[in-house]
Amino acid sequence: MPEFMDVHRGMIGITAEGLAAAHNADLAIQGDEGVVFKQAWADPDSGFVYCLSEASSADAVQRIHERAGHPADEIHPVPLKV
Amino acid sequence: MPEFMDVHRGMIGITAEGLAAAHNADLAIQGDEGVVFKQAWADPDSGFVYCLSEASSADAVQRIHERAGHPADEIHPVPLKV
Repeated sequence: MPEFMDVHRGMIGITAEGLAAAHNADLAIQGDEGVVFKQAWADPDSGFVYCLSEASSADAVQRIHERAGHPADEIHPVPLKV
Repeated sequence: MPEFMDVHRGMIGITAEGLAAAHNADLAIQGDEGVVFKQAWADPDSGFVYCLSEASSADAVQRIHERAGHPADEIHPVPLKV
């Protein structure tokens, strides 16, 4: 399945607990769209959050993020990986 | 060691071979700065490349990327991960 990297901006001050809660909110409903969120990384100082997922499309990723309350600012397929 | 996510823009048309060559150029000299590049993802259509690394600082990551010929456009520490 294609992989996607999405970016959320403005999450300044996010905590480990906040990141886990947001990630768990995605995991709880990801199956509805056939999405698999694999990993997320966050920088509380700059407010950037990066999420790596497998999905059929960027739209499927966004639908889950929107329903979980944190739409992504950018989503890019990442067909190449090393 | 802290982890960092860096972003390169404008790599439109990058190929699997090009990504591997760029990554290998980093790996060949990363030890000079104590950096460990762990993974890189690329989107040839939008030209975004994301690199995950472990390093003592963002500057150390950038010094390797610059010497390898592909300075990053952004580098953010990602102290939180799920």
